[in-house]
Amino acid sequence: MFHTRSIINILGSLLIIEGFFILLCLPVSLLYRENDSSGILISGLITGLTGFTAWFVTRKTPRNISTRDSYVIVTSGWVFFSLFGALPFFISGAIPSFTDAFFETASGFTTTGASILQDVESISHGMHFWRSLTQWIGGMGFIVLSLAILPLLGIGGMQLFIAEVPGPAPDKLHPRIADTAKRLWLIYVIFTLSEAILLWLGDMSLFDSLCHSFTTMATGGYSTKQASIAYWDSPYIHYVITFFMFIAGTNFTLSYFALHLRFNKLYKNEEFRYYLGFVIGFTILIALIMIFTMKKPLESSFRHSLFQVVSIMTTTGFVTSDYMLWTPILWVIIVFLMFFGASAGSTCGSIKLMRIILLIKNSALEMKRLIHPNAIIPVRFNGVTIHPDITTNVLAFVSFYLIIVVISIAIISAFGYELDTSLGAVASTLGNIGPGIGLVGPAYSFDHFPVIAKWFLSMLMIIGRLELFTVLLLFTPGFWKR
Amino acid sequence: MFHTRSIINILGSLLIIEGFFILLCLPVSLLYRENDSSGILISGLITGLTGFTAWFVTRKTPRNISTRDSYVIVTSGWVFFSLFGALPFFISGAIPSFTDAFFETASGFTTTGASILQDVESISHGMHFWRSLTQWIGGMGFIVLSLAILPLLGIGGMQLFIAEVPGPAPDKLHPRIADTAKRLWLIYVIFTLSEAILLWLGDMSLFDSLCHSFTTMATGGYSTKQASIAYWDSPYIHYVITFFMFIAGTNFTLSYFALHLRFNKLYKNEEFRYYLGFVIGFTILIALIMIFTMKKPLESSFRHSLFQVVSIMTTTGFVTSDYMLWTPILWVIIVFLMFFGASAGSTCGSIKLMRIILLIKNSALEMKRLIHPNAIIPVRFNGVTIHPDITTNVLAFVSFYLIIVVISIAIISAFGYELDTSLGAVASTLGNIGPGIGLVGPAYSFDHFPVIAKWFLSMLMIIGRLELFTVLLLFTPGFWKR
Repeated sequence: MFHTRSIINILGSLLIIEGFFILLCLPVSLLYRENDSSGILISGLITGLTGFTAWFVTRKTPRNISTRDSYVIVTSGWVFFSLFGALPFFISGAIPSFTDAFFETASGFTTTGASILQDVESISHGMHFWRSLTQWIGGMGFIVLSLAILPLLGIGGMQLFIAEVPGPAPDKLHPRIADTAKRLWLIYVIFTLSEAILLWLGDMSLFDSLCHSFTTMATGGYSTKQASIAYWDSPYIHYVITFFMFIAGTNFTLSYFALHLRFNKLYKNEEFRYYLGFVIGFTILIALIMIFTMKKPLESSFRHSLFQVVSIMTTTGFVTSDYMLWTPILWVIIVFLMFFGASAGSTCGSIKLMRIILLIKNSALEMKRLIHPNAIIPVRFNGVTIHPDITTNVLAFVSFYLIIVVISIAIISAFGYELDTSLGAVASTLGNIGPGIGLVGPAYSFDHFPVIAKWFLSMLMIIGRLELFTVLLLFTPGFWKR
Repeated sequence: MFHTRSIINILGSLLIIEGFFILLCLPVSLLYRENDSSGILISGLITGLTGFTAWFVTRKTPRNISTRDSYVIVTSGWVFFSLFGALPFFISGAIPSFTDAFFETASGFTTTGASILQDVESISHGMHFWRSLTQWIGGMGFIVLSLAILPLLGIGGMQLFIAEVPGPAPDKLHPRIADTAKRLWLIYVIFTLSEAILLWLGDMSLFDSLCHSFTTMATGGYSTKQASIAYWDSPYIHYVITFFMFIAGTNFTLSYFALHLRFNKLYKNEEFRYYLGFVIGFTILIALIMIFTMKKPLESSFRHSLFQVVSIMTTTGFVTSDYMLWTPILWVIIVFLMFFGASAGSTCGSIKLMRIILLIKNSALEMKRLIHPNAIIPVRFNGVTIHPDITTNVLAFVSFYLIIVVISIAIISAFGYELDTSLGAVASTLGNIGPGIGLVGPAYSFDHFPVIAKWFLSMLMIIGRLELFTVLLLFTPGFWKR
């Protein structure tokens, strides 16, 4: 029933690409004359050659992919990518434990940004580059990347695309999936380079500018500095990064239209209006509380509020201020924002605004239905009536999301952690955010978790990145039945 | 648009009933020769006479009730009942602050069981009797009570019934609403008396037996002892109360059939099977963790686990063991159980199992739908296909429930409380449970909250008891529009 050889063949070609990306870090390492060059070279070769072998052995298979195959490919693809992606950290000795190296890599590819590094600044430039690159690749998704650069995935590509980008995406850029993928990556590259140049024009070194642009556009949140963006006490840098985080949380199809100056598309898009509205609303709310209860100055309150709101809503996870040191109500709001996410079709994680909006709209309409019990009052989105199937799907997604959160909190608390830390770790990893609250707040690393908990949290990141269903399907008996 | 005079008339007759119930406590007070007799007498007269005046002035109104009227009557009825019900505590001086007296009464009528009393045993027998009685009346609902004893509510009674008991109740006992109400109250009385006798046969005084039977069958949880049921170190008493809590969490229509020995109705009811399954499953899980991590003996672990699981799931809130002293994972599980509730059509609060089951079923089926994208796979319950309207309603209910939880936690944390206490207080009051976690755990009272927070939490109890929509409707502009 499964096309095993086709699956191996595709996974093989994906690993070849990964090997290439690992080797991209070699020039950085050589440039800075650091002692991780051999580690990078060996890791890149192992990955590339493993991929080549898998591809070579199965190269004569006709490439048929069923829907089920695509779920297997995407889920196992993300696991293999993280396993091989951990090699540079592990072999170079930057992260001596393989569990930690895997966690750091999964956190990178899934654009979570949670780190086990106690001192981020202790690793070399080559390692920083790889760390940022994992987020950049993972942000847009390596299936989407492969679709853009490898014609060989043409067949079955749409199914793989759906399995990796399962969110409800209203507009398609182009009927041909490979063209869509190419355009998405083109926009992604343009934004990344623009941000890098703007940061470089500010107070940031070229290297840091590149790394932070990679992790901004991916809504990843890995920083080269222990203090994250708080390292730069520069309003310019804070605002530039805020701006690009906001763009990264916008549907890339909309950004495509915006780049073509078709701004009416932005205004007409309901999710974008809500996105903007939530960002403005929560920024003002938090800024006001900061000004009145914490007596902070106006501009600084506004800037830090805006930065943290956008960072958490887009699930990036950069910080300019440790919100755990704010008054309790503020970090409680931050925790709730962790469940929002930004637009579908962006690089963000978590539940995503479109689903939240549908829930809120449906709830508000239920009130109307109670007063007018005989009227049929459907949910409308972007001016179109939403089919009940979509409502059912959103219901299932949010239910699963909460069930996973609940069970995971119980599992993490079984290791002896308090509720705040468990909640923080789970919301942060499943939502691909990065920092949480309690012992995983911005001031802490994830290093203190036991080995099993680290593997478990890594799994949550991948489940979250692939929007639950793609991974969970593999655990249903029906999936494996003929 | 609203029939104001009819609304006042019905509210008046409800207050007459309440005045009668307050006066029922007078014999208890006289019997124990306590100094609260005059307070009880005055409160009963104020309540009864206010009700009589309201009824008398409007007695010649033709009694037309629209759907909207019924929502106004039920919501304001519960507020007025709590306001007047606070009088005995306040006038007798048992609870010197009116805010506290209102909180205690609302907590009683809504069968929450959260108390502001620092020492429960400090109040008199008459006050204990009133405290327990509020729960017993509130458990079945005073609208249902009025329907049973007052023929005058006959017209429009169905609408009031729906507004007070909005949960999805599959079977009707009898087509005539007054007959249904009578049968419900008859079963309620039978179970209450049976439990009182069984407890009395155990180690409990007659007075305590009666009070605890009132608050068990209402899934209320007020106890006459500071240590709650832990006061009695008697497995017999623990098991008797567990048994009746379980019954109180069962759909009363099913209990009616069970009393007529039609047990096949029980077995065939899907919600009941899940209810039993969840109770057994969580009891075993918690007992095993207690045995292995806390090294507790077998029978005691099983008994305390069963008692706490049934108490929290049925939203009663009795305790035989302070779960906050258990290992963290156990009270994390307890917190999650606070969102479950037991059967629809029982006296329990919270989300209620039927909704949870529909969510779980829909989520599981969504997996099937992903593998078979062209098949139409509806949710079935009790062998019947669930109409999409019900799914939409459940979605709206659960969304509202979570939105209210989230906003309320933020509000409580604004008073400077930590996340665990805020979560505990909100889950406990909105779910009508009683104890929470943190500073509202079983060892604490709700006394430490500021006045505004106490009114806010009282409001949550009423919103939760009336299953959200009935109260929330009154806050929508559409409700007041012509």
